Amino acid sequence: MKLYTADRAPNPDRVKYFLSAKGKWDEIDKQEISIIEKQHRQPDYLAISPLGHVPALVLDDGTALTESRAICTYFESVYPDPNLMGRDAKERAVIEMWDRRVELTYLVAMAGWFRHSHPAMAELEVPQVADWAQSCQGKVEKAADFFADRLSNSEFVAGDRFTIADITLHVGFGFGRIVKFKPWESRPALAAWRERIAAVPGMS
Amino acid sequence: MKLYTADRAPNPDRVKYFLSAKGKWDEIDKQEISIIEKQHRQPDYLAISPLGHVPALVLDDGTALTESRAICTYFESVYPDPNLMGRDAKERAVIEMWDRRVELTYLVAMAGWFRHSHPAMAELEVPQVADWAQSCQGKVEKAADFFADRLSNSEFVAGDRFTIADITLHVGFGFGRIVKFKPWESRPALAAWRERIAAVPGMS
Repeated sequence: MKLYTADRAPNPDRVKYFLSAKGKWDEIDKQEISIIEKQHRQPDYLAISPLGHVPALVLDDGTALTESRAICTYFESVYPDPNLMGRDAKERAVIEMWDRRVELTYLVAMAGWFRHSHPAMAELEVPQVADWAQSCQGKVEKAADFFADRLSNSEFVAGDRFTIADITLHVGFGFGRIVKFKPWESRPALAAWRERIAAVPGMS
Repeated sequence: MKLYTADRAPNPDRVKYFLSAKGKWDEIDKQEISIIEKQHRQPDYLAISPLGHVPALVLDDGTALTESRAICTYFESVYPDPNLMGRDAKERAVIEMWDRRVELTYLVAMAGWFRHSHPAMAELEVPQVADWAQSCQGKVEKAADFFADRLSNSEFVAGDRFTIADITLHVGFGFGRIVKFKPWESRPALAAWRERIAAVPGMS
């Protein structure tokens, strides 16, 4: 199989950290897709990923998978240890719930803030809606408060162990650097959590 | 267990159709939450669902699950037949990919269109950003074209059988009625798919 990926972009980073936490990142055959050079909109790549999304994983039988979380689901089956998505019905649902909370309240709002305000996105996000960027900034601040509260009461995002939900929040924090948003600087519970996850193999 | 749900709202509908397709909707103990009456923002309900999201499923041990797709993941384990989320690593990933494509290109954009343009949402979505609603309308049209193309070449959204991805698209189509968007009227492949899924037990 082969992973088409991009450096320092949030969705590719979700898969990168997921595989790193499983100790498998270095083993995977990879090809870099340059988003700045619009390689993700070239016909060759669109034949693999019809919406131009990066990353994409092509399996040995030719099946092309996109959507970072679906790619993680595949790797969770293929490389079950350490478990990052839950071992039974309840745990799988709780982890997915927390992962979605991170994604839908934090990552999606961060994407709106960045894509609709940053000059680098003017050509890719047409039209840029400044009022929407501002609204999204407020949503991200609120989400940061929510997770600071959660992480005051829970060691990791989904409970007492490291899971995909921590990876998604970590990716959201990295993504925020592009708009200079560092919520852990004013929220000690987030700073403490960052130290905890930095100690997880593959995460630093 | 007990399901807190709301009538004719997209996220509750995802769980409703999922359970209906498994023949279990009538069996579940349910309580209606009125979003119009803001019951989802009352302290009693926020103790179950901290973000005020509907639906929520409270398990017998007191665990509260929110996020409709995470609730479906739980029910998929508890009621495995008919399978709606995949039987092996590859199929689970392919179905999740298609479900996410529907959710992130169609449902999220439909929500943006509705929430930022409809007078009924003025009090719940502050501020309403009219330019964002218009941008989202364009995204929904584009997504409808994408799925019309997909369903010209595939019997169901994720492949040759009915899955959760069909439920999510069906819910998106129902949601669109509120802004009078009926993409199947001008796209025969979507009209034909609607007939196919109406024949699935639990879907009509």
